[in-house]
Amino acid sequence: MPAFDTVIRNGRIATASDVFSCDIGIREGRIAALGTDLGDAGEVIDAAGKWVLPGGIDSHVHIAQPSGEGIVMADDFASATRSAAYGGNTTVLPFCLQENGQSLRAALKDYHAKAEGECYIDIAFHLIISDPTEQVLGQELPALVADGYPSFKVFMTYDGLALSDRQMLEVMEVARQTGALVMVHAENYDMIRFLTDRLEREGSTAPRFHAASRPIVAESEATHRAISLAALSEVPLMVVHVSNREAMDEIRRAQAKGLRVMGETCPQYLVLTAKDLDGLNMEGAKYVCSPPPRDTESQIACWEGLQQGVFSVFSSDHCPFRYDDPQGKLIPKGRTSFRWVPNGIPGVAARLPILFSEGVMKGRIDINRFVAVTATNHAKIYGLYPRKGTIAVGADADIAIWDPDIRQTLTHDQLKDGSDYTPYEGIEITGWPVLTMVRGQVVVREGALTGARGFGRHLERRLGA
Amino acid sequence: MPAFDTVIRNGRIATASDVFSCDIGIREGRIAALGTDLGDAGEVIDAAGKWVLPGGIDSHVHIAQPSGEGIVMADDFASATRSAAYGGNTTVLPFCLQENGQSLRAALKDYHAKAEGECYIDIAFHLIISDPTEQVLGQELPALVADGYPSFKVFMTYDGLALSDRQMLEVMEVARQTGALVMVHAENYDMIRFLTDRLEREGSTAPRFHAASRPIVAESEATHRAISLAALSEVPLMVVHVSNREAMDEIRRAQAKGLRVMGETCPQYLVLTAKDLDGLNMEGAKYVCSPPPRDTESQIACWEGLQQGVFSVFSSDHCPFRYDDPQGKLIPKGRTSFRWVPNGIPGVAARLPILFSEGVMKGRIDINRFVAVTATNHAKIYGLYPRKGTIAVGADADIAIWDPDIRQTLTHDQLKDGSDYTPYEGIEITGWPVLTMVRGQVVVREGALTGARGFGRHLERRLGA
Amino acid sequence: MPAFDTVIRNGRIATASDVFSCDIGIREGRIAALGTDLGDAGEVIDAAGKWVLPGGIDSHVHIAQPSGEGIVMADDFASATRSAAYGGNTTVLPFCLQENGQSLRAALKDYHAKAEGECYIDIAFHLIISDPTEQVLGQELPALVADGYPSFKVFMTYDGLALSDRQMLEVMEVARQTGALVMVHAENYDMIRFLTDRLEREGSTAPRFHAASRPIVAESEATHRAISLAALSEVPLMVVHVSNREAMDEIRRAQAKGLRVMGETCPQYLVLTAKDLDGLNMEGAKYVCSPPPRDTESQIACWEGLQQGVFSVFSSDHCPFRYDDPQGKLIPKGRTSFRWVPNGIPGVAARLPILFSEGVMKGRIDINRFVAVTATNHAKIYGLYPRKGTIAVGADADIAIWDPDIRQTLTHDQLKDGSDYTPYEGIEITGWPVLTMVRGQVVVREGALTGARGFGRHLERRLGA
Amino acid sequence: MPAFDTVIRNGRIATASDVFSCDIGIREGRIAALGTDLGDAGEVIDAAGKWVLPGGIDSHVHIAQPSGEGIVMADDFASATRSAAYGGNTTVLPFCLQENGQSLRAALKDYHAKAEGECYIDIAFHLIISDPTEQVLGQELPALVADGYPSFKVFMTYDGLALSDRQMLEVMEVARQTGALVMVHAENYDMIRFLTDRLEREGSTAPRFHAASRPIVAESEATHRAISLAALSEVPLMVVHVSNREAMDEIRRAQAKGLRVMGETCPQYLVLTAKDLDGLNMEGAKYVCSPPPRDTESQIACWEGLQQGVFSVFSSDHCPFRYDDPQGKLIPKGRTSFRWVPNGIPGVAARLPILFSEGVMKGRIDINRFVAVTATNHAKIYGLYPRKGTIAVGADADIAIWDPDIRQTLTHDQLKDGSDYTPYEGIEITGWPVLTMVRGQVVVREGALTGARGFGRHLERRLGA
Repeated sequence: MPAFDTVIRNGRIATASDVFSCDIGIREGRIAALGTDLGDAGEVIDAAGKWVLPGGIDSHVHIAQPSGEGIVMADDFASATRSAAYGGNTTVLPFCLQENGQSLRAALKDYHAKAEGECYIDIAFHLIISDPTEQVLGQELPALVADGYPSFKVFMTYDGLALSDRQMLEVMEVARQTGALVMVHAENYDMIRFLTDRLEREGSTAPRFHAASRPIVAESEATHRAISLAALSEVPLMVVHVSNREAMDEIRRAQAKGLRVMGETCPQYLVLTAKDLDGLNMEGAKYVCSPPPRDTESQIACWEGLQQGVFSVFSSDHCPFRYDDPQGKLIPKGRTSFRWVPNGIPGVAARLPILFSEGVMKGRIDINRFVAVTATNHAKIYGLYPRKGTIAVGADADIAIWDPDIRQTLTHDQLKDGSDYTPYEGIEITGWPVLTMVRGQVVVREGALTGARGFGRHLERRLGA
Repeated sequence: MPAFDTVIRNGRIATASDVFSCDIGIREGRIAALGTDLGDAGEVIDAAGKWVLPGGIDSHVHIAQPSGEGIVMADDFASATRSAAYGGNTTVLPFCLQENGQSLRAALKDYHAKAEGECYIDIAFHLIISDPTEQVLGQELPALVADGYPSFKVFMTYDGLALSDRQMLEVMEVARQTGALVMVHAENYDMIRFLTDRLEREGSTAPRFHAASRPIVAESEATHRAISLAALSEVPLMVVHVSNREAMDEIRRAQAKGLRVMGETCPQYLVLTAKDLDGLNMEGAKYVCSPPPRDTESQIACWEGLQQGVFSVFSSDHCPFRYDDPQGKLIPKGRTSFRWVPNGIPGVAARLPILFSEGVMKGRIDINRFVAVTATNHAKIYGLYPRKGTIAVGADADIAIWDPDIRQTLTHDQLKDGSDYTPYEGIEITGWPVLTMVRGQVVVREGALTGARGFGRHLERRLGA
Repeated sequence: MPAFDTVIRNGRIATASDVFSCDIGIREGRIAALGTDLGDAGEVIDAAGKWVLPGGIDSHVHIAQPSGEGIVMADDFASATRSAAYGGNTTVLPFCLQENGQSLRAALKDYHAKAEGECYIDIAFHLIISDPTEQVLGQELPALVADGYPSFKVFMTYDGLALSDRQMLEVMEVARQTGALVMVHAENYDMIRFLTDRLEREGSTAPRFHAASRPIVAESEATHRAISLAALSEVPLMVVHVSNREAMDEIRRAQAKGLRVMGETCPQYLVLTAKDLDGLNMEGAKYVCSPPPRDTESQIACWEGLQQGVFSVFSSDHCPFRYDDPQGKLIPKGRTSFRWVPNGIPGVAARLPILFSEGVMKGRIDINRFVAVTATNHAKIYGLYPRKGTIAVGADADIAIWDPDIRQTLTHDQLKDGSDYTPYEGIEITGWPVLTMVRGQVVVREGALTGARGFGRHLERRLGA
Repeated sequence: MPAFDTVIRNGRIATASDVFSCDIGIREGRIAALGTDLGDAGEVIDAAGKWVLPGGIDSHVHIAQPSGEGIVMADDFASATRSAAYGGNTTVLPFCLQENGQSLRAALKDYHAKAEGECYIDIAFHLIISDPTEQVLGQELPALVADGYPSFKVFMTYDGLALSDRQMLEVMEVARQTGALVMVHAENYDMIRFLTDRLEREGSTAPRFHAASRPIVAESEATHRAISLAALSEVPLMVVHVSNREAMDEIRRAQAKGLRVMGETCPQYLVLTAKDLDGLNMEGAKYVCSPPPRDTESQIACWEGLQQGVFSVFSSDHCPFRYDDPQGKLIPKGRTSFRWVPNGIPGVAARLPILFSEGVMKGRIDINRFVAVTATNHAKIYGLYPRKGTIAVGADADIAIWDPDIRQTLTHDQLKDGSDYTPYEGIEITGWPVLTMVRGQVVVREGALTGARGFGRHLERRLGA
């Protein structure tokens, strides 16, 4: 019997802090050894000339969520996890959305049912708290944290989702008592409604006015407010999808005061701008997400946030719709304003190539920082570490092999998601994940899907030590 | 016929920028001349050895407002303006409170009726917008600005008063269109309710818990939010009664960005602290105001705000209740928590002596800064300048003569208000206003009331140039 | 005998805080009365439709200083004070430069000799300490402060002038003991020498490289260092001629900490940029001053500094040379590098029209702020107040009457200085001083010189109260 | 032949980013494998229940340097490296001090001669540039960088060491051209001399006045200046031994601007204060180092700097003298002032236990941050990575095994250095390094020295990638 099921030879391995060259011996889905000239194996994968990295973890993806107006999200769990694997990911963290009036348990049961038997890679659910009833706060949430769902997201905007400050405090109080982590979508709901109404009154209804309806101040205000609520509650906070300097600086100020406030940014804030919403007819709708992409100076700020550690995670905020679909990206039938364009763009497969190419290959961040913000920090912050998020003996063999010499133009057909476009179409990309392995099984190899639908598991999580 | 009705001789005069010594010649209620050896006069007032200053303007006083639970405010317009005159003031700006469901016009009619024939000194009303209906925003408010009521206050907290962010934006939009000024009471309503509920659940109901229920973060958060709303609306903003460094620093940050954000502080934030609420039994209720007094470091911060120009006005936030009265400061019958102590303390007469003594005489601010923050800036910001707020030819002869040599212990009986205590009892005061003149008429002279009830007029105001 | 020697009627008067309309009665060189319908006068000046302002005080001018290499400054005391009067000034504060090895007393005797009988307006000398010997520090300086010279300037750069940090501390120690004020030219000498040597090695010797040799960081570093030295010494500090945001922000930071640090900016930092040094041949030499003009963003910063109170004074840093002069603006004979272009540009007459036009008329600052930063603050900071710097009874009748309706293009012939060009040639100017009066005597009226050479006096000064 | 020379079994291993449990297989002085159940070995070390960490790297130690006045440093290379090994270190970076007038090559030859055959652990020299002649800058320094000495330290204070700003710029220019790293001792020389002279004049000569002679502003000023010089030079900068918030904040500001400025702090700034210098008689001299320890607030700031990443390295600044020595800690014969107390305290052995106990065991930092600031970052910043500074396949087997259960009081006899005291005497310590291994050889095991004098090698270094 060979010593290992699989050995990856000759690769250059990076963790969040180290770079070294050696073989990786894999046994029973886990990394059993790192060493030179490891013994024989059932399968040998040659990684000479390539980077061998921890598989990407994308802690911010939306899959199979309803989006109002009968709009269907473009990805189910099969297509989303397939696309993720193509993009070098081995775990994604989708959201379980509580609908108003629904119990959290019931919502979770639904989402598990949707995911069961469908996933190509591993998943773990965050909870979205949209209706923090006494029942939810007093019983369900504590029980679910204990069951392995220790992170929940709250929204400060969106009809049917936005919590009041009071509700946020009540959710945070549960987080404090259970040791859970609150994630926040920080935009000022009232500002957005006020501006949207005004824009519509003025007849400014094209998709590009989506950006005008959600200015930077709506985000920086809500960011400061969320941080204030967390400070009062004495809980850590993750501010997701930060898009600009003003919001980033609020997080930086909080960190300098010693508050445990963390930040996330996403590819759309590094490579898109509000000008992308200016497309002819409805083309701009392809770029409608919230917060909206801003401008070049905001892109620079988001890079600085990644470089200087203000942001600890880089996620996709994958939220896919179909453009060429009467119920999708086009404004739903009978509607005439950007207000009805579903907010969200696909990105789970494009996230890592964009950061690898624009970040690592262009010298903005080093390979360790890439691993940290795309894998290790996600695992640590959300309770998957040390099983996930690194290459170390004992960890799951969740690995992506990257060829830094591949240069190509990004096109939607490479991404294998359920949408019909990518907002990143046409970007020149250097470096590509040529193999994705989950728990020792090769899921994607050189563009071919080799994994099995249903192989992916749900992961229970625990925070803290 | 003498050249002047009155001449004030030999005084040392200060304006917001200058100090000079000369006579002041007064004719028909106005300053007709400044000069040496002015001619004869109907009355000559000798001010040798004394400061001759513009009469104080207190742009933040509450008179005869209802306070819920049947509580009666301790001052009507007669007693409040009498007390103000004793404290060296010549104009006060009380609030006209719109009750829910009430039209602004109706509210204003009520308040004018209460004031008519009662005032010893001049007054001008701010409006409090508690119910910004379409009628209020679209018709009443613009008309009232045009009629001379160009400043309105909004509350971010208090049952029945708190506006939503959306409502604030709508009020600010009217301000933008009419050139009016928005004043804001900035405290986070939800934080306060959340904490109050928790304190009550814990049985922490004594007056001192009022301070715990409104922490600094509730104020600094709301301050930042109000500034964000004003920045979006492109309107100037006056943040009233700032109590601490964090809130002050939000204003300072906004000013450094070039936003027209102004700040106000009050005597309670210079000389009281939260410890004053720790009195035996209900004694602490005497110090219940919002925001609450903080700590020594916050006092230092508020002084710095006055010194460095972060604050442009110093007001009393006079809001008097009677302590020894079941309908006053004592918790109303049937109630058992600090929640029911009416928020507010008297201060219209004590404001100027406290700042003169603690500020000018102790060298923290100079006499010009004293005049600026107690008179001139109020007049300029709220549209009373150049008729009010300075000593200059053509201005109303609104003058206070201060004797810097009087040293005494502050006691309530000196203040002549309708309350039965002063929260500043026992403070050693150096300097006192020995004469207050409104439009050439001596209203208070050496402790004697010489003015006529009803002499005071309401002033229509215009902002801008 | 008429009541007044002169009455200025019907003007609109502004002080640093007020605006009012009345007559000004002048007797024996002083303002004797402000009032309506003042009595008869020897002379009546009609100021209807015009601003009547305190005469400008320019606290930063260089007159008749030697500049090395045999270069002669283009203005003597007659021409400089004449030019100043044409520009609406009534007092200037030139420097008495101590040469190395020279006693301060001897230097002062020289400068008084140069000024005696020459001046059209009043003057007062600052001292420049270039050689702080034990004799200077221990004896001369304290004696001169007592004699009315309570402000001294130190240089952190320039051959033969730059003091070491140790020397600055020693000078500041004298300032602390005597209550004098230290002014500092803040640029890092070593950075400039290092860069100048490098530029010359590279053959970059044209005038435009003057700007490259003195980058913003040389100024912001020295500003921070000077502030640190003053903080250690516990003395106030005036940072002169601040040119950019980084240096301004160092001053702002110090002020926010409660340090008494003041700042000055000058017209060249509001309306010129480094591009002005790019002229053909030697034309760029017309703009060589230190610090050099920067860029548009720096101009915006300097305006903010004036608006927000970071800067309390606006001066010319008048330092005139002749361009068309073999020993003047052209690089001296035998020299081939910008290093030898004397640093300094004329500005004493252009200062006020530029700020009036660009500041007041364009709405960047109001008329009170104009008066504060051009007159009142100079008088207060440097010990001339209340005799100088305002319009008030008892003050010297130092007055400038401005016609806000005059529009013209600035040309050198309007300025009447000893130079042969103005760096501000061609700027469109709205508003002009049509009459300048010193101690009741009209010195310039509608472009005609009516004052007497030698009428101007030297003023002894006292700081603080 | 066994598979490995040595296997460390069952330990809990930490790197700068990861924690995992496995065996470490060592062959020929390097880590050959990480895995579970690694094969047989010449020696098996059981690490059950213990932390297995990268050996400490101390990048700031002074060994065998002359200290003026004939004072002999208390450690030679044998005793210093022995003591370092006892404290869990495997590499130290001492300084080669260029004396005035000496060539760098000659200085280096001297230090190599002192070290040759003496060291128990590996070493690498930084250079101290005290005399940057043309020869040094133009020839020696570039050649030495190429030879593996790519880091040099400059002093802004100390007689005979302090460089001028100009000299610093010239050294930085060499660093820019050669890719070397400049380290800076940032204190304002002139401030210190000025204060020292004044203290001596006042008779304040006891050791405790050392602290008064070097106030925080002397450090924060020089820190800002050094950063400004580095910014102008476009080179990275390491600010060593930062002691307080003001200096830390200057580094933080620079980092937020995107400058590559790094910071170091030391144990004396975490656990000592200026009060420690208040000892009876000369006892205070035991704590004389520069910058001096400050106060509790400064300690908090330095912890924040470590936690928040403002500081990337934690070093000892080991600089040992003997207290009970007529030429040592006591003021040298014939001297009567703190000025003559040699600056420096021992710490190479105490550094890691203090940070492990106060940082890791008390929850201020996690084990990954401990490894980063005590080993990995030193190796990366100074060019020893990936050979040194981590536990990874291919790296030198430089390992320290820590027992977290050992609790003891720190006493000097545990530290095995050449001094006769420790400034940390009496501190309660939890956790201790029970085994130190360099390149696979056990140097210290359970308090016994097992390494060979002379086994330690000098390491040539290369920066960058």
